Amino acid sequence: MIKKIDHVGIAVKNLDEAIKVWEGLGLKVDEIEEVPDQKVRTAIIHVGESRIELLEATSEDSPIAKFIAKRGEGIHHIALGVEDIEEHLEKLKEAGYRLIDEKPRIGAGGAKIAFVHPKSVTGVLLELCQRD
Amino acid sequence: MIKKIDHVGIAVKNLDEAIKVWEGLGLKVDEIEEVPDQKVRTAIIHVGESRIELLEATSEDSPIAKFIAKRGEGIHHIALGVEDIEEHLEKLKEAGYRLIDEKPRIGAGGAKIAFVHPKSVTGVLLELCQRD
Repeated sequence: MIKKIDHVGIAVKNLDEAIKVWEGLGLKVDEIEEVPDQKVRTAIIHVGESRIELLEATSEDSPIAKFIAKRGEGIHHIALGVEDIEEHLEKLKEAGYRLIDEKPRIGAGGAKIAFVHPKSVTGVLLELCQRD
Repeated sequence: MIKKIDHVGIAVKNLDEAIKVWEGLGLKVDEIEEVPDQKVRTAIIHVGESRIELLEATSEDSPIAKFIAKRGEGIHHIALGVEDIEEHLEKLKEAGYRLIDEKPRIGAGGAKIAFVHPKSVTGVLLELCQRD
């Protein structure tokens, strides 16, 4: 079951400058976290039941660095909060969706996450995310 | 004051096919609405306190048609729900943000909406949205 928009991930060139921009809009960064697995440093902004995650690459081979090189800064992915990620992945696989991660891995904040390929989701890089 | 992520807008080529894809993920389209002002037909999916809006151009000069021609299908914008859109726009203008709409106009579902230019918001087309 899909519960909510867990977060929207935004690829930024410079995290400190991006924080100024987003705080200037009237939001507040709650924490900054490094996620080595995805080679990013992320500033987390809580907005209602969701989050906005500003993502800066920590390495040139980070997916975020590649995204920015190709398309520039901007919205990188959307994450939906699910109750049971393993069950949800299984259903999507059976239905023929192209999964980037067939098994969940650990993302920012210790959540279980998995990505679905944009080719299966109208050009949207979709993340499923389960927090306990 | 920013209350929540109101919605994420997704540019799609064919609304009927996109609905199948997004419903196959485990979501449900609640309504379909035409917004002549923005030259789009939109399928609205409620997810928690937010919505996902699938946007299909109804004309070749629709912003959605231009977006798809340039970048393909994908996430088009993110909208933040605010309490007082006029006051919020005034603050952003004073702070030097580049506004696409200096005054709100009426969007899907009768909401007051206004867009902020991506050049001011780390490449993100940002909408402010007030629903009463």
